[in-house]
Amino acid sequence: MSVASFESFRKRLPGIIYGGDYNPEQWPRSTWHEDVRLMRAANVTLVSLGVFSWSALEPADGEFDFGWLDEVMDLLAVNGIFANLATPNASPPPWLATDFPETLMVERSGTRVAVGSRGHFCPSSEVYRDRSHRIARKLAERYADHPALAMWHIGNEYHSNCFCDLCDERFRQWLQNKYGTLDELNSRWGTTLWGQIYSQWNQVHLPKPVRGWVNTARELDFARFNTDIQVELYRLEKDLLQSITPDIPATTNFIQFFRIQDYRRWAPETDVIALDIYPDPAKPSSLTEAAMQYDLMRHLGDGAPWMMMEQAAGAVSQWKVNLTKQPGRMRLGSHQAIAHGADAVMFFQWRASRFGQEKFHSAMLPHGGQDTRTWQEVRDLGNELRTLEAVVGARTEAKVALVWDWENWWAVEGAAHPLNNYDYREVVASHYQALWKTNVAVDVVTLSSDLSKYRALVIPNQYLISEPQQEAVREFIRAGGHVLISYFSGIVNDDEQIIENGYPGGLRDVIGAHIRDLSPLAKDATVEIAAVPGQDLFPSPFTAKASRWQDDIAPEAANIVAVFTEGHLKGKPAILDHHTGQGSAIYIGTQLPQESLERLVTAFIERSAVESPHAAPQDVEVTERHTSENRFLFFLNHSTTPKTLELEINGKELLGNRKVAKGEKITLEASDVAVIQVKR
Amino acid sequence: MSVASFESFRKRLPGIIYGGDYNPEQWPRSTWHEDVRLMRAANVTLVSLGVFSWSALEPADGEFDFGWLDEVMDLLAVNGIFANLATPNASPPPWLATDFPETLMVERSGTRVAVGSRGHFCPSSEVYRDRSHRIARKLAERYADHPALAMWHIGNEYHSNCFCDLCDERFRQWLQNKYGTLDELNSRWGTTLWGQIYSQWNQVHLPKPVRGWVNTARELDFARFNTDIQVELYRLEKDLLQSITPDIPATTNFIQFFRIQDYRRWAPETDVIALDIYPDPAKPSSLTEAAMQYDLMRHLGDGAPWMMMEQAAGAVSQWKVNLTKQPGRMRLGSHQAIAHGADAVMFFQWRASRFGQEKFHSAMLPHGGQDTRTWQEVRDLGNELRTLEAVVGARTEAKVALVWDWENWWAVEGAAHPLNNYDYREVVASHYQALWKTNVAVDVVTLSSDLSKYRALVIPNQYLISEPQQEAVREFIRAGGHVLISYFSGIVNDDEQIIENGYPGGLRDVIGAHIRDLSPLAKDATVEIAAVPGQDLFPSPFTAKASRWQDDIAPEAANIVAVFTEGHLKGKPAILDHHTGQGSAIYIGTQLPQESLERLVTAFIERSAVESPHAAPQDVEVTERHTSENRFLFFLNHSTTPKTLELEINGKELLGNRKVAKGEKITLEASDVAVIQVKR
Amino acid sequence: MSVASFESFRKRLPGIIYGGDYNPEQWPRSTWHEDVRLMRAANVTLVSLGVFSWSALEPADGEFDFGWLDEVMDLLAVNGIFANLATPNASPPPWLATDFPETLMVERSGTRVAVGSRGHFCPSSEVYRDRSHRIARKLAERYADHPALAMWHIGNEYHSNCFCDLCDERFRQWLQNKYGTLDELNSRWGTTLWGQIYSQWNQVHLPKPVRGWVNTARELDFARFNTDIQVELYRLEKDLLQSITPDIPATTNFIQFFRIQDYRRWAPETDVIALDIYPDPAKPSSLTEAAMQYDLMRHLGDGAPWMMMEQAAGAVSQWKVNLTKQPGRMRLGSHQAIAHGADAVMFFQWRASRFGQEKFHSAMLPHGGQDTRTWQEVRDLGNELRTLEAVVGARTEAKVALVWDWENWWAVEGAAHPLNNYDYREVVASHYQALWKTNVAVDVVTLSSDLSKYRALVIPNQYLISEPQQEAVREFIRAGGHVLISYFSGIVNDDEQIIENGYPGGLRDVIGAHIRDLSPLAKDATVEIAAVPGQDLFPSPFTAKASRWQDDIAPEAANIVAVFTEGHLKGKPAILDHHTGQGSAIYIGTQLPQESLERLVTAFIERSAVESPHAAPQDVEVTERHTSENRFLFFLNHSTTPKTLELEINGKELLGNRKVAKGEKITLEASDVAVIQVKR
Repeated sequence: MSVASFESFRKRLPGIIYGGDYNPEQWPRSTWHEDVRLMRAANVTLVSLGVFSWSALEPADGEFDFGWLDEVMDLLAVNGIFANLATPNASPPPWLATDFPETLMVERSGTRVAVGSRGHFCPSSEVYRDRSHRIARKLAERYADHPALAMWHIGNEYHSNCFCDLCDERFRQWLQNKYGTLDELNSRWGTTLWGQIYSQWNQVHLPKPVRGWVNTARELDFARFNTDIQVELYRLEKDLLQSITPDIPATTNFIQFFRIQDYRRWAPETDVIALDIYPDPAKPSSLTEAAMQYDLMRHLGDGAPWMMMEQAAGAVSQWKVNLTKQPGRMRLGSHQAIAHGADAVMFFQWRASRFGQEKFHSAMLPHGGQDTRTWQEVRDLGNELRTLEAVVGARTEAKVALVWDWENWWAVEGAAHPLNNYDYREVVASHYQALWKTNVAVDVVTLSSDLSKYRALVIPNQYLISEPQQEAVREFIRAGGHVLISYFSGIVNDDEQIIENGYPGGLRDVIGAHIRDLSPLAKDATVEIAAVPGQDLFPSPFTAKASRWQDDIAPEAANIVAVFTEGHLKGKPAILDHHTGQGSAIYIGTQLPQESLERLVTAFIERSAVESPHAAPQDVEVTERHTSENRFLFFLNHSTTPKTLELEINGKELLGNRKVAKGEKITLEASDVAVIQVKR
Repeated sequence: MSVASFESFRKRLPGIIYGGDYNPEQWPRSTWHEDVRLMRAANVTLVSLGVFSWSALEPADGEFDFGWLDEVMDLLAVNGIFANLATPNASPPPWLATDFPETLMVERSGTRVAVGSRGHFCPSSEVYRDRSHRIARKLAERYADHPALAMWHIGNEYHSNCFCDLCDERFRQWLQNKYGTLDELNSRWGTTLWGQIYSQWNQVHLPKPVRGWVNTARELDFARFNTDIQVELYRLEKDLLQSITPDIPATTNFIQFFRIQDYRRWAPETDVIALDIYPDPAKPSSLTEAAMQYDLMRHLGDGAPWMMMEQAAGAVSQWKVNLTKQPGRMRLGSHQAIAHGADAVMFFQWRASRFGQEKFHSAMLPHGGQDTRTWQEVRDLGNELRTLEAVVGARTEAKVALVWDWENWWAVEGAAHPLNNYDYREVVASHYQALWKTNVAVDVVTLSSDLSKYRALVIPNQYLISEPQQEAVREFIRAGGHVLISYFSGIVNDDEQIIENGYPGGLRDVIGAHIRDLSPLAKDATVEIAAVPGQDLFPSPFTAKASRWQDDIAPEAANIVAVFTEGHLKGKPAILDHHTGQGSAIYIGTQLPQESLERLVTAFIERSAVESPHAAPQDVEVTERHTSENRFLFFLNHSTTPKTLELEINGKELLGNRKVAKGEKITLEASDVAVIQVKR
Repeated sequence: MSVASFESFRKRLPGIIYGGDYNPEQWPRSTWHEDVRLMRAANVTLVSLGVFSWSALEPADGEFDFGWLDEVMDLLAVNGIFANLATPNASPPPWLATDFPETLMVERSGTRVAVGSRGHFCPSSEVYRDRSHRIARKLAERYADHPALAMWHIGNEYHSNCFCDLCDERFRQWLQNKYGTLDELNSRWGTTLWGQIYSQWNQVHLPKPVRGWVNTARELDFARFNTDIQVELYRLEKDLLQSITPDIPATTNFIQFFRIQDYRRWAPETDVIALDIYPDPAKPSSLTEAAMQYDLMRHLGDGAPWMMMEQAAGAVSQWKVNLTKQPGRMRLGSHQAIAHGADAVMFFQWRASRFGQEKFHSAMLPHGGQDTRTWQEVRDLGNELRTLEAVVGARTEAKVALVWDWENWWAVEGAAHPLNNYDYREVVASHYQALWKTNVAVDVVTLSSDLSKYRALVIPNQYLISEPQQEAVREFIRAGGHVLISYFSGIVNDDEQIIENGYPGGLRDVIGAHIRDLSPLAKDATVEIAAVPGQDLFPSPFTAKASRWQDDIAPEAANIVAVFTEGHLKGKPAILDHHTGQGSAIYIGTQLPQESLERLVTAFIERSAVESPHAAPQDVEVTERHTSENRFLFFLNHSTTPKTLELEINGKELLGNRKVAKGEKITLEASDVAVIQVKR
């Protein structure tokens, strides 16, 4: 990341950034003036401009029309609003497809997609690359010195996934580069299985549909390649922009829980991390899943503040049933992002479209205009955020890390496993939720991250684990760290080959046991477990109904925490605790009910001697950000009733701008927020 | 419609027409003689002949064999049975596909369908048009003066839906014709959204599969085009037939609740409205949905009697579970059609096939022959219908209209809406059912119909509303009419663009309120509503559990009828009542449970001062048809127990051929019917 | 079947054969020595070798590498282990697809499958045939005289299902051969339905996707053709092998409940019947469904012992949730196979793969090696089976036959039936389960089998019945046999044309009644039936709640056993009993609940005077095999509690090697087995 360019950017935009996607090309010129007037009323400081404007800027191959954009940029500049100017590569114009059909993406099924939506390009096409870079260059050259230009928004939610012949050739090259020889590829992919040994490179292809199950190592490489080719595309454009506007930071927007792009590969290529997130108001888990995504973004940026680049002011329109956000919830969610490290709160989009695919996606300025609850909440929030200027740049120091790993996501949800209806996201989120309830700060990491700063490490179902990752876990424990590992971990290496030595080959010494047999439980079946006397993780007596999975564990050095009390593993261990030196590893060989997992994780956090920044009643989330001079404590009431808490600190509540003192009781209304600044 | 030809036709076939599809080409000649003998026993007067006979009549390109058909036509004529002679274009012969593959339909996926079923033609292919018209011409020329020829059955259930290159070209021409310029198309389709502005006509295509959501305006135009091209195909053949046999009426058969053809565009092209209908005995709602279809058919024909062209004598075979009709139910359903304006009761098909796709579709003459309940009921009904000859030509005058609109159907079920699991049919049918329970006559109209004859107008979820349609509603109220409108109405114009001015832009003044926010409710969630004191539509107190949808309503001139009593809209209006002059508009901003909707609709009908033709106990349907001299009251007992009613009129019960008098109590057995003729 | 070659084979491998698939090409040479050492420890006598080894044996077209296989064969021979050597045609190498793309299978959708799985070949391709036969010939020539070679494993689970142009041409030839003339084909397929009469052979194609419902006679012929072409492929290879190694028996492995290959056509082409079976531990019905498959295999081989060629030692990996086999259940299931006639117990596979598609499919030697429950059970079973050497060759004489018919399976699950969510497998299995509970021996036959040896015949839903089959049923009853027939039987002939004469045209005289109307019941609906006084099949009074189906029966010569007591058929017959001479036919016109079906079947077995080999408590399965000198009684405790039974015979319990005497009480632990040898 280019830290220099981003710091100069922040000097131009002090305070929490506020704004949204702005698509003036959908509206007559007359509307633009109302737009900027209302933006100012809402304290909008930055707009993402022109994300889908390619066909408006270049109506035919090589014919450009920048007039309308000049006018909009000038209007923004005059009004003190900055542009997060987009390179419009996410949606090529119809002429590109008509003139060069090879620029259209091909689905895995072999169907070449048609024009009429977005994201329909082939990432390998030289024509697409040439034309998309040309329009990017034109924009950079034209607006390099424009006072409104603050930032580059490169493309949009990169997500094409192409199976055309051009991509086939690039995949083969990628494999040649990775493996060198066919022998090496055959060995690493395990092509002796089902007799698929390749004898010439021209036999190797993208994983088009086969008859029967797929080779999962090949699928894994395709997923890696698919990230690499998109990153390559982005990099080419970013390099181009930086050669013209070296002081303007650039990024692209990530999507929450997005399976087909490994954002850990993307993060170093951006100047600031930017997230598009749409928590579903109908799902209770959205609250903690959003927090988990925010902690992930913070870690992707090495702890630097990040941008919430898109959220909805109310409802979205892509699900079967799209609930609106209830009063106060958009504000609460925005503060939650800031509480987890965001320094920007932005929306898709500024003004609700009248037509097309996203007309019922809510906007800052709804179809109903200023006479709507949504607009009023948006305007009020924009103004309220002025009170948080001191928070900008503040960071969070976490002592607890949770693993979220794209390669493992791809692998653990692969074909032909003991359990084939597995949802990695759900499993990791359930662990995160258990941590969230303790209000300790959490970094969302991988086992390849620097783990030296943490005291506790939660590893949910790390099925795929490379050798260096195995060693990292060992080193973490040797250094006195505490680890909690869930079942179906340590099974395969990064070629998706079983790590031999009895399960879990990669972590056998870590958990102090081996597993004689893996087995899921039948759908809806449960099996009781009970804590054994003498362990210190559960109260005694303690029983719970576990489900989904049962390891047949043979303990070696580990202590037994709980055993199965029924079924064919009756009396055998279900949970282990393995102490080595100052460190320890808890292993869970089944799926605990959520409340039991939360109880165990709480005990694990206590063992790790990590504390939350401040006590709080249930459903009140507490986070901390700090600078060298101040701590900022965020209190977020996610419940639908008022909550009272007794302060442990002296400071100033920023949103209400009043002093608060230790011992004082403050009450948070339903959905309300307090941000208390405390001198260090 | 060619009224003249149809009147001459009715002179030749007096009485209620009775019969079915006749496919003698499936049987040896010896069977034909038994067929006509049994047809006469069942009082069959008309058979639809040769619907799938193309390959039997033209075994190879240009080689014809009319011998068997000559024989059948003669046999019918001799026996006094008329032919509704089909042009057999619905299922081209295999040779057409082999010799001219471009005549085969292409699915949206791009797959060209294979031979072996039916309806597999491309409507744009000149070869298909040429060959299908040639066989039609041959038939017309050959049988123009044949005494059996009574009517033309053009094609069958037109429903091809082709995405081939020929259709692509025709769609482009259709768009050029509609929009004139690309600028106009871009503006009306909103192609600035996601940057899909077209700069040359050759960039514009049929909506083949895209990556992501579709442009709904484009989909809407494709649906319109798809009706137009099928109508064009039909018209070409109809014009041809009428040039040869100007006195023979012609039609084609419609399908119940058929989404991909807008029958309002078709209706004026037919000489008589004909309906194929297969109510599912397993679904309780089939009863009222059938009645609604009948009222729609009557209105499509401007009130003229229509033909039930196909129904099942017992079970069909296309669903997962195909229940037979229980004893008496086929008779009851046939009388229900007549009660709603049919002058013909016909079946698919005469004799059950021994082979192929429809062998378990029931027939007038089942596989088991005359020793079956089905045959006996069919024979008895045919003879019973002789008693209703006086009913022929009688009409129904409705004062209540219900809107059923294909364009709105396509639009309201489009992509990316607040609610994407929406079923327009179900919603309109629930409103119809509420009306049906009051036994008032209902016309099923659109807002583009002549509304001047109605006193009450029910508008369920009219999401799409053109400017003339908005004005028609206003004019209806100005004239003292009463309107009931359900949520998600008045949102977009006929380009599917949001009508600005706050929701519902098209009806804001009509309902006397605007809606600050639209939101569905979560699946299975309910929210209580309560009627407010002083309103006159619900008893007091009144509460109900609403679901699926919640408008955030800001009343302007309207009165509040009911409010939400829980949730984030607690205390805000749920139902409005807006009186203007003599007229009024009720607006329902949520989905009421069916019994509450029925209660509200009953109050609405009372307000509108519309009455049913005769009082009746629950589950006894009452309808009226009349001529200048007589009223005919139909009483249909849809329950499984006897029902008694006290007559309010003097007259003659036609089925039993006996006089009845005012004050007399008559009892209808389960599934029984009475038809009482009353002098005006 | 070549009995001679198989008998010489048995001389070389006395005792119950034990072993599994062996894929040494997946492992380094060093592992091979451990493999044979552990095989000997587990008493492995036969391994299926090289099933997926083509690409390892022939890395490029015409370049061969047999070195590794030579070494493995020698190693086996030295250790006294035999090879069931595979011809590796099931998974062609990648080079074949690259060099000859026409060798790849085409799906019904038209997609040509890609390389990367298995079973991806076109059975018609001459190139595929040539290359697969060449590698087979090379193997045969090379190992003809090798001491380890015991048997040929031709291909693997033949199951390709190709819709390419080459197959299209072969299908047309197949039809020309079957029908001779197009007139005959048109008549038998009923192409007058929907006007699809063919006038040239080039119009006739494989059933590619059509618009709407399919012609079921055409689908039926395609299913027949698809078996024939696979059998042809297999035969060519078998003939080739036998020309080189006339004394080596050959077979291929069948799949349980495999719909797309009619194994009755396959059976005569094999020298021994071999079954791959994977009962799902999560499904209670797996127990009886496995037994049914075993009885089917025994009958396919004319009563000769068969081979369980593949089973899982623990879990498989292809389902959503793959449960492991609980302790003792693999042993129990293996003995169940022997109890039903198997003389070989084999597994897929010997050593669990480290990579690829089947790494979580359990193996004899798991990833965890010898320190696993699975290995210990596998090793113990192998050694235990030495005690059953006397059983080898013993046969079972059944007096009861149950019909399982592939042609009927295809037909009865065809399109456009009264009930279209029908599952033939489930229906037949429910009848089998009823028989299984009586512990009588059952042969699983078709109506084309020799029925003369049976006293009782159960015919579940024999929708399709040819004329000779109808006659066979009549003859069976004439000979004094007893028949039980379930609803929807006797409806169509083998061209899938309705057999006229009122339902069930093919069996009307047999059941002594005709059916006036067929109708399913609505989903979840039930209708009560009650037994009538005087019948001898149910106790009195007896009622039950039937479901799914209701025949409207008009009894002729039959007696009424039970009637419907509600619904529109109230008072009409539900079950009939038709005595003719010494024989009888019970007809069930609805679906009985399982316990009522079991009660009726028990009465039916009593009437037929067939007895089980030995009394036993519930959940203890009893079977008998015998030679000319001995009877072998198998007692299998499928319950999870101990069961005690009193012996009725004197003999020796083989597994425990101890004498037992009449009157003695023996207790079987949960999942335990006893095998008692009794002198005749």
